[in-house]
Amino acid sequence: MSLLVVGSVAFDSLETPFGKVERTLGGAATYFSVAASFFTHVNLVGVVGDDFTDRDAEIFRGRRIDIKGLERAPGKTFFWAGRYGTDPNERVTLATELNMFATFRPNLPDSFRSCKNVFLANIDPTLQKSVLEQIKGVPRMVALDTMNYWIERTPAELREILKHTHVLVINDAETRMLSNEHNLLRAARHIFKIGPKTLVIKRGEYGALMVHNGGIFSVPGFPLEEVHDPTGAGDSFAGGFMGYLAASKQVTDAVLRRAMVYGSVMGSFAVERFGLERLRKVKRSEINARARHFFKLTQFKL
Amino acid sequence: MSLLVVGSVAFDSLETPFGKVERTLGGAATYFSVAASFFTHVNLVGVVGDDFTDRDAEIFRGRRIDIKGLERAPGKTFFWAGRYGTDPNERVTLATELNMFATFRPNLPDSFRSCKNVFLANIDPTLQKSVLEQIKGVPRMVALDTMNYWIERTPAELREILKHTHVLVINDAETRMLSNEHNLLRAARHIFKIGPKTLVIKRGEYGALMVHNGGIFSVPGFPLEEVHDPTGAGDSFAGGFMGYLAASKQVTDAVLRRAMVYGSVMGSFAVERFGLERLRKVKRSEINARARHFFKLTQFKL
Repeated sequence: MSLLVVGSVAFDSLETPFGKVERTLGGAATYFSVAASFFTHVNLVGVVGDDFTDRDAEIFRGRRIDIKGLERAPGKTFFWAGRYGTDPNERVTLATELNMFATFRPNLPDSFRSCKNVFLANIDPTLQKSVLEQIKGVPRMVALDTMNYWIERTPAELREILKHTHVLVINDAETRMLSNEHNLLRAARHIFKIGPKTLVIKRGEYGALMVHNGGIFSVPGFPLEEVHDPTGAGDSFAGGFMGYLAASKQVTDAVLRRAMVYGSVMGSFAVERFGLERLRKVKRSEINARARHFFKLTQFKL
Repeated sequence: MSLLVVGSVAFDSLETPFGKVERTLGGAATYFSVAASFFTHVNLVGVVGDDFTDRDAEIFRGRRIDIKGLERAPGKTFFWAGRYGTDPNERVTLATELNMFATFRPNLPDSFRSCKNVFLANIDPTLQKSVLEQIKGVPRMVALDTMNYWIERTPAELREILKHTHVLVINDAETRMLSNEHNLLRAARHIFKIGPKTLVIKRGEYGALMVHNGGIFSVPGFPLEEVHDPTGAGDSFAGGFMGYLAASKQVTDAVLRRAMVYGSVMGSFAVERFGLERLRKVKRSEINARARHFFKLTQFKL
């Protein structure tokens, strides 16, 4: 089934203990759609400036990604620069230039409006709402990401869009901030009252946790010897997760668990190289092999 | 098969967001032996002062724990006081009074010297060595815990005892400090060169990771709504882990994985109440049920 993603397409300058790159293609919607396209067809909605070239768009070609919804506006593309420490969790933002993204108003092409699965990447909750308003009928699955900025500054707007959200995909710090609860299970119960009935908590190197009424599922982070660049890990996770769900006929607990694993697989590939370098080269056979690695990593018999 | 533990028996004064207790029985060897005794017979070696009463010793009665090696010396028992924050990882030590533990010289009763499985809890590496020297023959399995204090102050002595250690059971910060490597897989390779061929990394609420030449196994922390008191979680984990191994005829990868799960089960019970309150009441049927919960928490099909 079709999958829509609305979010940022950006240029990132990245510095990690393994090197640095200047103005490499990034952004939540980019990582998400590349990761998801291994599982299903993806419709992308975002905005770029006139510094975004045909060469930049190459990443989407030959994949199941429709960029009809990628608006090109006069001006510059969203730019982010950051530096990571030896501990990938230590991140310093060096520059954030919203540029065209500051005035982004998502506008869905007609053919995107019947999408059944929607991922609202981390943008202004008011814009996330406007996306849902453009969807025809009731989507099967709406998943949403957000961040501390919106949790603090637009809590009412965020709560409003959360009422229409099935799956909230956020990190542990955001979970605690949104619920005002340190304990993640209590936090989940709090969030279920706001709207989403499934909470997926991204925990970086520690993996991810899913809490829903069918129980709790935990998947570890994939042990890697070198994390070259943590950028995009969460969005690649979301892409694998939603891509797998969109491709599945039914959304059962077993399917959600597998979606968590494929999300983790895509996140683990994303961080192996800078920017999208690894994801753009990964093969479906490697994805399957890594999923089996996750199986080996976690399975036991009693 | 028999299991020997050498380590601290202590009184702890504990303060957490869930309450406080004064001078409750604790210490690594206490948590370890109570947890391990659900799986095998345990021989305990430690020291207490004359403030340690028959009532304190009650915890060991009716369990498979032989305290013939628990020396009673004139003076006071090791005392520790600490406070935990809402985040259980935020720990403040309020008092450490080594008392009799400062001059502790482990002396194994004759009947303990043929023990085949040995757990050297966190004490001076020189004393850990002296324990091994008192063992007759070659033990099947030597596991060891240590801490930043010994890693920093007695590195040569620690390396010496690690040569004779099969399983190193430490937390992630200690792993990084010992190996001078942030990445845990590289840290493991470094540690394998020193001696231990199996590294078990305790990660608190994030669970535990085992690395050995047979591969990597990850078990999550058990999601609990309330962590009343994190004290003793790591030692209870080690107790469940070593207890299960000691009770197993062979040490295969499958057995080690189950040992990791039973270690996690015991650690998860330990933190549910203050001190040993929960561990002393837990039933074998509850242990089995929680192991099945761990199974449900982690299993998926591809």
